[in-house]
Amino acid sequence: MQQLTIAIDAMGGDFGPQVTVPAAVQALSQFPELKISIVGDRDEISTQLTHLNYTPPNSRLFIIHSDSAIGNNTLPSKALRHSRGSSMRIALDLVASKDAEACISAGNTGALVGLSRFTLKLLPGVERPALISPLPTKNNQCTWMLDLGANVSCDAETLFQFAVMGAELAEQSLGRKAKVALLNIGEEEIKGNDQIKRCAEMLYQCQNIEFIGYIEGDKLYQGIADVVVCDGFVGNVCLKTSEGVAHLFLEQLKSHLITSKFKQILAKWLFGDVISSLKGLNPDQYNGASLIGLRGIVIKSHGSADISAFNNAIKEAVHEVKRQIPNRISDRLEAVLLERHY
Amino acid sequence: MQQLTIAIDAMGGDFGPQVTVPAAVQALSQFPELKISIVGDRDEISTQLTHLNYTPPNSRLFIIHSDSAIGNNTLPSKALRHSRGSSMRIALDLVASKDAEACISAGNTGALVGLSRFTLKLLPGVERPALISPLPTKNNQCTWMLDLGANVSCDAETLFQFAVMGAELAEQSLGRKAKVALLNIGEEEIKGNDQIKRCAEMLYQCQNIEFIGYIEGDKLYQGIADVVVCDGFVGNVCLKTSEGVAHLFLEQLKSHLITSKFKQILAKWLFGDVISSLKGLNPDQYNGASLIGLRGIVIKSHGSADISAFNNAIKEAVHEVKRQIPNRISDRLEAVLLERHY
Repeated sequence: MQQLTIAIDAMGGDFGPQVTVPAAVQALSQFPELKISIVGDRDEISTQLTHLNYTPPNSRLFIIHSDSAIGNNTLPSKALRHSRGSSMRIALDLVASKDAEACISAGNTGALVGLSRFTLKLLPGVERPALISPLPTKNNQCTWMLDLGANVSCDAETLFQFAVMGAELAEQSLGRKAKVALLNIGEEEIKGNDQIKRCAEMLYQCQNIEFIGYIEGDKLYQGIADVVVCDGFVGNVCLKTSEGVAHLFLEQLKSHLITSKFKQILAKWLFGDVISSLKGLNPDQYNGASLIGLRGIVIKSHGSADISAFNNAIKEAVHEVKRQIPNRISDRLEAVLLERHY
Repeated sequence: MQQLTIAIDAMGGDFGPQVTVPAAVQALSQFPELKISIVGDRDEISTQLTHLNYTPPNSRLFIIHSDSAIGNNTLPSKALRHSRGSSMRIALDLVASKDAEACISAGNTGALVGLSRFTLKLLPGVERPALISPLPTKNNQCTWMLDLGANVSCDAETLFQFAVMGAELAEQSLGRKAKVALLNIGEEEIKGNDQIKRCAEMLYQCQNIEFIGYIEGDKLYQGIADVVVCDGFVGNVCLKTSEGVAHLFLEQLKSHLITSKFKQILAKWLFGDVISSLKGLNPDQYNGASLIGLRGIVIKSHGSADISAFNNAIKEAVHEVKRQIPNRISDRLEAVLLERHY
């Protein structure tokens, strides 16, 4: 079995080592081929390992001490200037120096995007990296959506590149051609802003991508498209709004049920499967958005991720290392560009 | 009781007179002070009235014949050039000539925005009209959101004007100061695009508006803000995505229940209130987005509205006529501009 090493920013997210360390230990038991370099405050990490009765040194878990961590409110430009010695920067440097094959952080998104671009560099032909994540849809399918917040605005060419990168990532999981759509405020050709209209023209002309046209927000969870492309502002609002609506529904159901034990038992019998399937519709259930377009693998975890969610992000990193996602994206982009020029 | 007249574009929407005519007849029985001018194909309207055993001429319902209707896919620019004689244009002209005090249409949104602007003109100081609608939130409250799709992009000044107009409309229903927020991809001051950051600065400086800062998509339905401001692209995606998630949840619940009649009866008896309250969380339940910023009242109904939903749009029009919303918005904007200059 081929070994692989993943670097984890232990200090990122709302809970830091309390979440990242147990999730890492869990991943080591799930993947015998996995090695982890965990970067952060040595004492805090050791305390967590002691809680777990897991005693380093272990030949598969390496603690790399860092003196600082990047705050959630630090401006990306400032984070970049003062990143030396921070857990996020060290974890990314390990990928840049090929000492690790992927990096995971639950820290400041803007800083992670900026630092990843700076340390790992973009793939040839890529203008902007994008955050992409699968969202649950009807009938237990999923739809990959990008960009989820790496870029506040995007031109037509950038959206086009996102479509190509997203299609490649989705196809690696689906094992078939991915249906790609552009998120818009109407399905007719006249709708939307200039960037979207021009990107649609480019996608219609591209033989390499199966473009199915525009999709509206209300169709997002119907499983019509495998990949949905939009700019990072719209994508982020869309994802968070969906989480908000899903939480509201689940909360409302719960609050009605706790009024009586009798109702609770009956509800479990009547709706046990429905409620768990409703929970499965919450986009929050997935964790681990990939920052794609870079010469290395970077996974962004939710800041509020718990141990199991952070563990999902590690699993996504392992999957991408095994599939060599950056190489595949690079090849796909080259193929599309060649098609365009000849 | 003071009389009021409302003009209805009978031909707009997915169902045309089949929905608009019964909804109008319903409204006439709800509001004794109401007169309706219904614009569209005279034969189609008469057929519907015959179905309802409602025989014109009646001193409160006037049929105004139109030869054409604007299609859903017509470009706004084309709609504007070829609008003469269409039901939408005639209904709007009735407001412009003061023969009606409000217009309601379920037709092409882009055409309605363009034609409204052309026939009714903008209020002094307003650069763009905006679509605004209340959304249901936790604890049976609601949040007004704008712009829901009248403008695909907006600068800081336009967003600022939306905030002022939205606050005035919300306060007319709330009877107290409205808490206004800007939709963004983070709550920290560093987040978002330039337009949003500059608009936030303007709102912080404005004494006349109670600005509470940024709000993220996942907090939209928590009832934290009374008014949420964003550009029309983001607002439209956000609203439709919410409807999509809500429908998915309700569908899932329903599909589990129809497996057994016994389960259905038991569920209705035990959880009837939960299910109806979940339905109440669907943003779709409200109908009638107001196009504000104009020198007249225009209500946009969902294209897919049924009789009861279209009737809600008529009720919204009656409410706005009684409150003289355009005058109040004009006064509020003037007050804000004066505060800014002195």
